[in-house]
This record gives sequence, structure tokens and C-alpha cells, in this order.
Amino acid sequence: MLPSALNDVIDALGRLPGVGSRTAERYAYFLLKSDAKISENIASALSALHDGVKSCPVTFAIMDASEDVSPLYSDPARDKGTVLVVEEPLDIYAIEQTKAYHGTYHVLGGAISPMDGITAEQLHIRELIDRVANDSVTEIIIATNPSVEGESTAVLLDKLLREKYPDLQITRLARGLPLGVSLEYADQITLTSALNNRTKI
Amino acid sequence: MLPSALNDVIDALGRLPGVGSRTAERYAYFLLKSDAKISENIASALSALHDGVKSCPVTFAIMDASEDVSPLYSDPARDKGTVLVVEEPLDIYAIEQTKAYHGTYHVLGGAISPMDGITAEQLHIRELIDRVANDSVTEIIIATNPSVEGESTAVLLDKLLREKYPDLQITRLARGLPLGVSLEYADQITLTSALNNRTKI
Repeated sequence: MLPSALNDVIDALGRLPGVGSRTAERYAYFLLKSDAKISENIASALSALHDGVKSCPVTFAIMDASEDVSPLYSDPARDKGTVLVVEEPLDIYAIEQTKAYHGTYHVLGGAISPMDGITAEQLHIRELIDRVANDSVTEIIIATNPSVEGESTAVLLDKLLREKYPDLQITRLARGLPLGVSLEYADQITLTSALNNRTKI
Repeated sequence: MLPSALNDVIDALGRLPGVGSRTAERYAYFLLKSDAKISENIASALSALHDGVKSCPVTFAIMDASEDVSPLYSDPARDKGTVLVVEEPLDIYAIEQTKAYHGTYHVLGGAISPMDGITAEQLHIRELIDRVANDSVTEIIIATNPSVEGESTAVLLDKLLREKYPDLQITRLARGLPLGVSLEYADQITLTSALNNRTKI
């Protein structure tokens, strides 16, 4: 019933995460009513996406396809002796926004999840172990997500790294109350961590 | 900091209605992680959108660019003597889904809104008045939105049509309680309409 070109746009946009058919219709109709330039901009940006981005061979961060290694690694101002380990490339940008970290990164490419068939072998753990020797790393900060999968991955990483480098300092991001959450709504695990890791004022 | 190809996609998707930078990031990163085919599908659908859709010269409904007039008008099974008037092209599909209407349509292209600078002259009212004579129309169903702008437009349409065609039947969509809304939450105007237009059971 709808013009097929409009239907095609609705179907295509419906593949985006969390976008149902009503939202896809709203997007499509907005684009149809708007200047064709907006649709063309999105189309050309999407066409260039996969060819314009690649994975850094050292850190597995995403970077411009024109780079050889991620600027977050090659930058001489960054301390290669400290490596912060994250699950996904975008986690890096959350940390970077704090402007509180000046070391380098390592992207695992996920977390161990038997349910989703993700095993330790599929993550970039081997490469991390090699980096510790190659870059004379002195501290590894494990910043996997505070989920069951993230926790298991952290425990395994800790074990593998300690086996090979008994003197390596291995730390985790602190657990505690996030800003703006009142005590009565905090979950028990968070509250226990906040209590055990209490700091002097 | 982000690869520029990824930034371009985030910026472009951020133009969609209701999509802020966090949502655009989520879409962009999903596309980057997914097979490139999904991005390419969206890109090609968007590129074809504006050239693939045009406005029907009679009803101003949207239609495939390959058609001369909307199939909703040319279909001989549809009663050209009855015209349902809507603000926007997609309103037609809401009515069509009811399968309760077998006449034709006329899209005004909006509603009178002094605030947004939309005057009666910018709407397809002249063409509607001409259609009444050309198609020997006997009934006009005004289905503008139940908003201030939709109401003003309906009042003006009624006036202009009556001036020229005193015998034309002009109706409006009924006002009343929508399904699933309990009495205590219904607004007063709706409840007044529901009471005044009560039907025999």
C-alpha cells in the first residue's frame, strides 16, 4: 500500500537496535518530508562506515582506516607501561571523557559468555599477555563491565596474568555508590563494596 | 577522538527525529559491529527514497514515482463520490488499516497554523474545491487531527465548501471515548462529545 521506496526505508531502518515499525515509519516519513540532502548525508556516511574504520592491530581499539596503530597507543605522551583493559571499543571513549587516564588501552572484544558461545580463545587475551612483555607493562587495570560475564573474564585475566608475571600490578575499577543514587535504592552488592572499600574523608 | 567515519554516521543519524547523540552512537556502533550489508541496505534505501516517491497530482497522497495517479484514486472499486480529507499522507494508511472506508482521499498537506506560518493558501484546499465539481462528490469527511490547528482547518474547510456547494454533505470523524481509556481519565471535551453524540445500544 505504501510506496515501495518508503517501505524499503522503513524495513531497512527497522534493523537498528530498539527501532520498531512505528519508529521506523516516523524516521522514514520525516526523511521523506525533509530535504533529500538529509537522506543522502546518512546514506553516504553509512556507505563509508565499514571501509573508514578498522581495528588497531596492537590495542584492538577502533581507528581511522588510514592509521597504522591507534593514536591512543602511538601518542608518546601516553604511558605504555599502564594498560586499561575493556570489553568493547566504545568503552575507551567513556574512560577518555573523564580525562583522568593517560595510559594505553586493550580491547578484549567482549567478555566470556558460555550462553552466547563466547570463549576465552575468542577474546584478545593472548595479545594482552604478549603486550605485557613487549611494552614492559607494570600495571594492568581491568575495566570489564560489572556483569557476571565481565566478572568471570576479570577473574580469568587475573589468573592468567599472575601465572606468567607474578610481579605485575593488577587492579580493578572501584565499586561503590554512583553519583545521585540514594542509599535506599543501591543494590546489596554495590553497597557491600562501598562499605568494604570505604575511603577516609 | 572517534574514527571520523564513525563520527560522520553519528552526526548524520542524529538528524533523525528524537535521536540524541547517545542513541545515534548506539545505532552507529551497532552498524559498525554488524555485517556491512545492513549499513549498505539502509544507505541504498535512503538514496532511492526521494526519487522513488512522489505526490499524487489529484489526491496529494504519496505514491510510487512510476504511477500517474494514486492507486487509491484510480482503483475503480473506490467511490470517487466520497472524499476523506486528511492533513498528512500517512494519515491515509491509518484509515486504510481499518478496512472500513472505500471512498477516496485528499491530503491537505498540513493544517492552518499561524504560529508555524502555515496559511490556508499553502494547503491543497483550492484543489479539493475543484475536485468536488470534477468528481461529482456528494460527501466530504473531514478527518483533520483533533488539535487546535486541525479544528480551525476543519471549520474553514466547512465554510468554504458550503459557500460553493450548499447541498454537499460534510461530516467529521466522531468524537468519543477511545478503546481502553477509563471514564475517569478521559478529558472533558472528549467526554462532552461522547455524551452529546451518545448512540443507542
